[in-house]
Amino acid sequence: VVPNTLPGETPYLAVDRDVLERNLARMAASAADRGMALRPHAKTHKCVEIARRQLAHGADGLTVATVGEAEIFAAAGCTDLFVAYPVWATEPLGRRLSRLAEQARVAVGVESVAGADQLGRTVAPGTLDVLVEIDSGHHRTGVDPGDAVTVAAAAERAGLRVAGVFTFPGHGYQAGARSAAAAQEAAALREAADALRAAGLPVEVVSGGSTPTSGLTGAGDLTELRPGVYVFNDAQQVELGVATWSEVALTVMATVVARHGDRVVLDAGSKALGADQAAWATGGGRLPDHPEARVTALSEHHATVVLPAGSGPVVGDVVRVAPNHVCATVNLADELTVVADGEQVDTWRVAARGLNR
Amino acid sequence: VVPNTLPGETPYLAVDRDVLERNLARMAASAADRGMALRPHAKTHKCVEIARRQLAHGADGLTVATVGEAEIFAAAGCTDLFVAYPVWATEPLGRRLSRLAEQARVAVGVESVAGADQLGRTVAPGTLDVLVEIDSGHHRTGVDPGDAVTVAAAAERAGLRVAGVFTFPGHGYQAGARSAAAAQEAAALREAADALRAAGLPVEVVSGGSTPTSGLTGAGDLTELRPGVYVFNDAQQVELGVATWSEVALTVMATVVARHGDRVVLDAGSKALGADQAAWATGGGRLPDHPEARVTALSEHHATVVLPAGSGPVVGDVVRVAPNHVCATVNLADELTVVADGEQVDTWRVAARGLNR
Repeated sequence: VVPNTLPGETPYLAVDRDVLERNLARMAASAADRGMALRPHAKTHKCVEIARRQLAHGADGLTVATVGEAEIFAAAGCTDLFVAYPVWATEPLGRRLSRLAEQARVAVGVESVAGADQLGRTVAPGTLDVLVEIDSGHHRTGVDPGDAVTVAAAAERAGLRVAGVFTFPGHGYQAGARSAAAAQEAAALREAADALRAAGLPVEVVSGGSTPTSGLTGAGDLTELRPGVYVFNDAQQVELGVATWSEVALTVMATVVARHGDRVVLDAGSKALGADQAAWATGGGRLPDHPEARVTALSEHHATVVLPAGSGPVVGDVVRVAPNHVCATVNLADELTVVADGEQVDTWRVAARGLNR
Repeated sequence: VVPNTLPGETPYLAVDRDVLERNLARMAASAADRGMALRPHAKTHKCVEIARRQLAHGADGLTVATVGEAEIFAAAGCTDLFVAYPVWATEPLGRRLSRLAEQARVAVGVESVAGADQLGRTVAPGTLDVLVEIDSGHHRTGVDPGDAVTVAAAAERAGLRVAGVFTFPGHGYQAGARSAAAAQEAAALREAADALRAAGLPVEVVSGGSTPTSGLTGAGDLTELRPGVYVFNDAQQVELGVATWSEVALTVMATVVARHGDRVVLDAGSKALGADQAAWATGGGRLPDHPEARVTALSEHHATVVLPAGSGPVVGDVVRVAPNHVCATVNLADELTVVADGEQVDTWRVAARGLNR
């Protein structure tokens, strides 16, 4: 539903407060039911108000991607942060991590001997936990499970406390690939955790999870889940079958600026929606209120939409667009317009927007 | 060349001042040599310091995509602005346009009778010029040349002053397509301009041009060019054959955070580089100092790069990445680190970042 109280200028990001709340509650219950810790990835929302709601729903802490994000959430009162990234700790970054560890329990990812050594050189001794990143099939960062002990031992030698292992099963972001990715995630983490234990190294945390795979693993496999997108969902999650339209909490409000036959052009382009488009996506986003419509092209300030013959909006109409990948969308905006029952009820700042380092 | 004076934390956007200056001078001379006005598109840089340099090089004014961008550059002293977009003027947007027209000569795009009527309703009478947008083959916004008179006449009736016609030949963004797109651009604008003149309507401005096509048209076809990307260039322009690596003024400085065989992972992902990737692109960006390397995947904070066997950087090294589409990259950053002779010499704010409306 298009909110009655519009800013009057589009595009802007509308968050349905009640849908958001249901998404938060559902994931919290799902993790609790399985006896798993939930450490949501805050890179999706970058927003203090949403982080506080996640913690109020029982999250054990937050996951972040960068030290800059960690600083924002520590300042907002979060006392347990995991930077799920193999940080290369230059001197300035090491100083920031040391300061951060005075405010919160801080863990960071490590996936090479060189990276562990560098952390040991620049971070105050005894301040940081590390989790060894495992490659469970996504083939981005992370070591093979058989190499986990080498990295963990290097981290211990460098004065870091090894807390466990983590992975990101990003190869589950394909139609039909979720179950296999979740199984690989569990197997790789189990192999790495067993190897660490056999070498006498501590394994308190076995951390995995993405929104597509988070429902497919159990406490026997993982101790902790790190989904991010579930707070808002997006066109990708719907097209993957992970969420329904009624579970999409964030949409970009856009105005029809042109119509030529069955082609409509909206004023929300890649600078509002983001340009992410997986090979299997139907287009550059979706219109939840026009499910047959296809976003056939995005440029910076234009979304070209093809509609079924004779249907759909006209010039001047405002429509909702679900972006493909909501993490990218939020990172383009300074604020979120919070809507309930069709009225604007609040504005939340995207406090960690753009903090890539 | 990697600057000697590094912020110490990556990713960040480095602008080579001397390359930028040469790019500005070359395009200014190219337009002047052909007797054409140059109205650079400021959406690429969103930066007051660069806009002032463009005007100092003789630009006749600036092009912008949104009213928000226009407000930034008007406040910085630019007195001639063209919003090259078919703005749907809600009441708040109409008020902003009226205020803007007190500071500068303002023209906006129009491409429908409804859009012209709406501008006439919400903008103070006699304050705005309009240019009719023509579709020259890109099939986004714009009317067929044969419909230009209908829109122009509606604009005149609505109390707007018709200044001419414009188009964006975006279909020139493909290998081998530039010449044909430039020819279509010229033909469509000529047909529309002739039709307006035949109907007794004024045509002072015939405006076209994108960076790929800007060198391929003459004063006989167009009175004005609106390229944007040329200030920085990017991997797309190099892969299209429009620019060379020595003409790329902006690169994203990134640190190698992982290396596994010939796969290297950098800390500049889609949240630093942008996710734009045309079907013909070699990957998610290019490494100018490693021309054989391919960016095979981008996630939010990771660029996965495959290098020729045995070569290339190791964990902790800092490398330069040329993004595919620099307009998207700049819109993700708060500032540009200005470099000359390998040293940081200035920091420029991306003043219009995120101003999508």
